[in-house]
Amino acid sequence: MDTFWKSRWAGREALFKASEIRDILRIVDRPEVISFAGGLPAPELFPVEEFRAACERTLAAHGDIALQYGTVEGYVPLREMIARHVSRLGIEVGLDNVLITSGTQQSLDLIGRLFLDDGDVVVCEEPTYLGAIQAWRPYGPRFVTLPVDEDGTRIEQLEDMLRQNSPKFLYLMPNFQNPAGVTLSELRRQRVVELAARYQVPIVEDDPNVQLRFGGEHLTPLYVLDADRRPPGGPQARGDQAHVLYLGTFSKLLAPGLRVGWVVGPKSVIAELVLAKQGVDMHTGTLTQVLAHEVGRNGFLDRHVGALCRVYRERRDAMLQALEVGMPAGVRWTHPDGGLFLWLTFPERIDAESLLPRALERGVAYVPGATFHVAGGGSNTARLNFSHSDPERIRAGVERLGRVVEEALAGAGPRVL
Amino acid sequence: MDTFWKSRWAGREALFKASEIRDILRIVDRPEVISFAGGLPAPELFPVEEFRAACERTLAAHGDIALQYGTVEGYVPLREMIARHVSRLGIEVGLDNVLITSGTQQSLDLIGRLFLDDGDVVVCEEPTYLGAIQAWRPYGPRFVTLPVDEDGTRIEQLEDMLRQNSPKFLYLMPNFQNPAGVTLSELRRQRVVELAARYQVPIVEDDPNVQLRFGGEHLTPLYVLDADRRPPGGPQARGDQAHVLYLGTFSKLLAPGLRVGWVVGPKSVIAELVLAKQGVDMHTGTLTQVLAHEVGRNGFLDRHVGALCRVYRERRDAMLQALEVGMPAGVRWTHPDGGLFLWLTFPERIDAESLLPRALERGVAYVPGATFHVAGGGSNTARLNFSHSDPERIRAGVERLGRVVEEALAGAGPRVL
Repeated sequence: MDTFWKSRWAGREALFKASEIRDILRIVDRPEVISFAGGLPAPELFPVEEFRAACERTLAAHGDIALQYGTVEGYVPLREMIARHVSRLGIEVGLDNVLITSGTQQSLDLIGRLFLDDGDVVVCEEPTYLGAIQAWRPYGPRFVTLPVDEDGTRIEQLEDMLRQNSPKFLYLMPNFQNPAGVTLSELRRQRVVELAARYQVPIVEDDPNVQLRFGGEHLTPLYVLDADRRPPGGPQARGDQAHVLYLGTFSKLLAPGLRVGWVVGPKSVIAELVLAKQGVDMHTGTLTQVLAHEVGRNGFLDRHVGALCRVYRERRDAMLQALEVGMPAGVRWTHPDGGLFLWLTFPERIDAESLLPRALERGVAYVPGATFHVAGGGSNTARLNFSHSDPERIRAGVERLGRVVEEALAGAGPRVL
Repeated sequence: MDTFWKSRWAGREALFKASEIRDILRIVDRPEVISFAGGLPAPELFPVEEFRAACERTLAAHGDIALQYGTVEGYVPLREMIARHVSRLGIEVGLDNVLITSGTQQSLDLIGRLFLDDGDVVVCEEPTYLGAIQAWRPYGPRFVTLPVDEDGTRIEQLEDMLRQNSPKFLYLMPNFQNPAGVTLSELRRQRVVELAARYQVPIVEDDPNVQLRFGGEHLTPLYVLDADRRPPGGPQARGDQAHVLYLGTFSKLLAPGLRVGWVVGPKSVIAELVLAKQGVDMHTGTLTQVLAHEVGRNGFLDRHVGALCRVYRERRDAMLQALEVGMPAGVRWTHPDGGLFLWLTFPERIDAESLLPRALERGVAYVPGATFHVAGGGSNTARLNFSHSDPERIRAGVERLGRVVEEALAGAGPRVL
């Protein structure tokens, strides 16, 4: 084996880790497997015609801008659109509070790059978003975790954690969390913001799917609860006093293949993220930014989100019903009010990772939940995606999975798999 | 001033540095200033119509792929196209030797992320490409530099440097170097590859403009000279034995607003860069990759490059002639065989940075050369871009600059500015 290159890796190389999801996605790229493993939006709902028309208009009107270098901060009309977009959630900010990124994965990396030294503490949920762990692990932080239940992050231990660890920040996905599909309750949101303020800990609020709600009531973003604690002022002034970074993306609203996301935060933080971003990719592709703006403006986003919610609600309902019918006793699952995922908890003696090869044999895939547990545990859990398959495939897939679980439970021994 | 956020920056934040070029580009965004400061391709040559048609075809035929998540490695037909593209330069590789990145800036960052620990040595040219410094500085390396003359990097000190410093890698831009516009001679290329092999030092060969040659003969890439030292085999086998990473981009060939580049190297290195990339932006935008492939295939790239070379040659010639006419005695400049830039050296008592405000007053801009000197020096040098202005503006701009320099030289004192 050639050691010429290997002997030259940096120390952090040991912290790069292949995504199990990615390996699984490769396996399940076969039509006979019904995959609940991906996090893919439904491609049949992509606004292809709108993108085609936007390309046509954009390249005719200002191809010279769309194909040229742009500024690191992003395309100004798009940043203005994002500022208007988040203002409807109560997030009042000016242009200088918005940075366009190459998707949330980059938002997370830039935040790690700006904040994390070796040994720093990050408080996150357990299970939590795998992309955040992958982004931050190479910077060497220690992850301290809070468990999750049907009301989102459990916060009983939060105060102790903030006091004992002086974390660099608290990372939360309050709406339809990936992977667990749960939503942080209003009461807990209030408490989280109070405690973060008391212990002066910043919050990174990752909110990719806030608009993909198809049950329950909209709940106030942590960003807004934090802002309400501060003196009034214009959007820019309020934005600059925030102790929350608010992350969004077009991946689920328009199309993940764009790779366009955003960070909203105080001007002083945005300016630093801009310096970091300049070194990592100069700026996000101009053409995709111009297209995202052209497709998204004039109310199209709202109409499109309405259509997505109708379809995803139907699919979630199909999955919940199929689980009722097909899962043996002792299996529990979450009931998401939105988003793309729900979370299965099997009886403890089932190991979801060992079960996966059998499930694949039977033509159904999921992501074992241990993957999302940064501090270990969760071996009897799994993430199921309901956005990517139609109700018929969802019913067939859940039925297959139910049989696999049943057989496993019927096996001998305390931990058969 | 709010210390809430500032007190939380990571140590590397001190290594983020604003690009002077970027600040200058902002200043000169006024029509009355003739700017030789940017690195912009000529927008009037962008293949806008080809992109429009490619959008139309692509979205009609496979919008579901173009707008969906993709693999980290990149869109397979595009990777195949790049493998064919570089094979014409003598670089024989297979699909697994090609990684699509979000532009060369990302290629450089990923290389830094994979190789550089605090205190590691990187050998580079002086002056060198600013983007590389910005990408790598946050990883804390020490830069050791080789001066540049009309035949490219001067290599008298190279052997001592390689022996004494055990550098992680040697970074070179052999063709029409940014900023100096010079090309590494065939003889020196041979010697560089020999020495790198003797001291077992990898080479990062940054070659964005190899096809934008409009004078002299094509010279063999370092990658190929290195490969020729190894036993023969299929493309993949040869690619996997390489001690050179070869970087390319569509920025100057098609459009910089795409942000699509590539790294060609051994499978073992590409696999590590894939892990790194997964954490920083998941993958490069699918739509732009699909479009780059659609526009670039079927020989369009070659036809387009022909057109670019005709126009850029005319502009380079206009600048060289204008410099002959307009520059006072004692000013020297390079004579590039391609690319976008040439390099001015003023008499020593001229400080190009102090001169810039006066030049801007007179309506002409350049980038002071000190910016590109990572180890200091170069205060009497400047980079001029000739690709972005037509011959008439080039003549007018050089005339303005000539007058500013003349006045400065006529001023009193040993170092007037």
